[in-house]
Amino acid sequence: MSLTNLDLINAVDGFPYYQVDPDLYAASISTYYELRVTDHAYALGYILPSVAEVFRGVAHWDLDDEDRILTLTGGTTAAERSAVVATTLEALRKTGHFKVLDKWRNELYPVYGRNKELLFDVERAASPLFGVVTYGVHLTAYVKRDDGLRIWVPRRAKTKQTYGGMLDNAVAGGIATGEVAFESLVRECAEEASLPEDLVRSEARTVGCITYFYVRDKSAGGETGLMQPEVEYVYDLELPEDIVPKPGDDEVEQFYLWTVDEVKDHLAKGEFKPNCAAVMIDFFIRHGMLTPENEKDFIEIVARLHRKFEFPTL
Amino acid sequence: MSLTNLDLINAVDGFPYYQVDPDLYAASISTYYELRVTDHAYALGYILPSVAEVFRGVAHWDLDDEDRILTLTGGTTAAERSAVVATTLEALRKTGHFKVLDKWRNELYPVYGRNKELLFDVERAASPLFGVVTYGVHLTAYVKRDDGLRIWVPRRAKTKQTYGGMLDNAVAGGIATGEVAFESLVRECAEEASLPEDLVRSEARTVGCITYFYVRDKSAGGETGLMQPEVEYVYDLELPEDIVPKPGDDEVEQFYLWTVDEVKDHLAKGEFKPNCAAVMIDFFIRHGMLTPENEKDFIEIVARLHRKFEFPTL
Repeated sequence: MSLTNLDLINAVDGFPYYQVDPDLYAASISTYYELRVTDHAYALGYILPSVAEVFRGVAHWDLDDEDRILTLTGGTTAAERSAVVATTLEALRKTGHFKVLDKWRNELYPVYGRNKELLFDVERAASPLFGVVTYGVHLTAYVKRDDGLRIWVPRRAKTKQTYGGMLDNAVAGGIATGEVAFESLVRECAEEASLPEDLVRSEARTVGCITYFYVRDKSAGGETGLMQPEVEYVYDLELPEDIVPKPGDDEVEQFYLWTVDEVKDHLAKGEFKPNCAAVMIDFFIRHGMLTPENEKDFIEIVARLHRKFEFPTL
Repeated sequence: MSLTNLDLINAVDGFPYYQVDPDLYAASISTYYELRVTDHAYALGYILPSVAEVFRGVAHWDLDDEDRILTLTGGTTAAERSAVVATTLEALRKTGHFKVLDKWRNELYPVYGRNKELLFDVERAASPLFGVVTYGVHLTAYVKRDDGLRIWVPRRAKTKQTYGGMLDNAVAGGIATGEVAFESLVRECAEEASLPEDLVRSEARTVGCITYFYVRDKSAGGETGLMQPEVEYVYDLELPEDIVPKPGDDEVEQFYLWTVDEVKDHLAKGEFKPNCAAVMIDFFIRHGMLTPENEKDFIEIVARLHRKFEFPTL
């Protein structure tokens, strides 16, 4: 197997584009339900019919089959809506309706409206059921040597339920409700790579974000076909040679320090977790390693890494 | 006047998004004609009805009012099609049909098909009539000082027909047919800023591209409302303090060396040419000066700077 960079992008940004094929797009959309909140007449996410069906007749939810809309009708404030969502999901967790809920994290993710207002919080494991936008931070740590750049690449523990044994970015994690992106990064840098907080605060640089519309496959665990539009804030951190990232918990097996060519080889073999591959490709583009001259799909890749969603974002 | 960064993005990426408002999008599209080439059943650009009308009955062109498609029927090779396009445009230039053709450049731009094959060349000044994707290079030159970064900003000559007197990127130019992006950059660096070729070749770094769908307004000169989807390959060049860009032709009035705050002030005053403002904003994002914490429209801006077009690109 040798994957192109565009193959890797297709794996993480698998939802069809209206611009490319309006008919295919319409055919996809027409099978889904929109998630809405009362008094906010726009989609917050797309839901599979098999998921929407479970909400039929549940208190504080309205399922409209004609317009294919699932509306959260309970609550008028973020706190009230969040309470309804939590009650419903805890009940569904107990009844064992969804495999993704077996990986309950006790971590809340925010869902925003068009005015960037918090509409409600949702348990992290449940967010793909609603197809809402989630937010995370991804950091690439690298070392500049005379003979070229080296990149720190961790391998995920084989025992991890999701993407076990795959390659990752040096630090990555989700942004919980109420957390600011950079503070989330600082926390993850300590937890996942044991990086000194002072160093991270002074040297980690915000360099943009990637946005893509992931459709969950087998490697994600749980139900497949669930929709997961994601925003990942991207950071670069140049490390001195004497700072070595160390796994801070049991989620990482080990860290490799690889040349750019080594990273490219492992990318082409499909060893990276899909969204981490996207972050590496973005890094290569920003650092002049992938160029219009050596990457024939340059423009397509750059656009696909920065998708504009159908849903509001922060 | 104090413009936000999102205001500046809206100015350069003014075409509606299907994802945001399907009805508005459909209403816009429904008034336009698609440009096509025989045996390639997809749009290469959008054309105003007032422009399409002029091609009615012209040899080697077919105007389909029902499906709203203008098809170039003449020629089966790129060379043959280009000859037809040139003949038609030269005739239209003589008859004075379009003001944009008064700025005839004698410079050809490429139009590509879905397999990245060259379909035909078109005179640069005429490309907005067809609404086809055009390609360019933009370079930000900067100096690292102990007290912070300085950015070289040229002011366009007041006598320039397009965007006269506005602020620009250090180097910018269009990529002509047959030209490779980086070679186009090297040429423009000499012509526009008198930068040493060796320095540009060794130090200029490809850092991505921006893509946006510009709708021409008064400042562009000629007919307004013409559609101009553009790809600009983006480059960074850190200059030593003793290298000073100098206008190499009469297109630039003078170069300023400004702090980031000074650049931000002039951006907010609307003094930058629209797509050059977009390149500066992209620079600020990649260099950690605009962050999720200090720019409330961060995600929206990043996505809008990397639009996926309805049309094929290289």
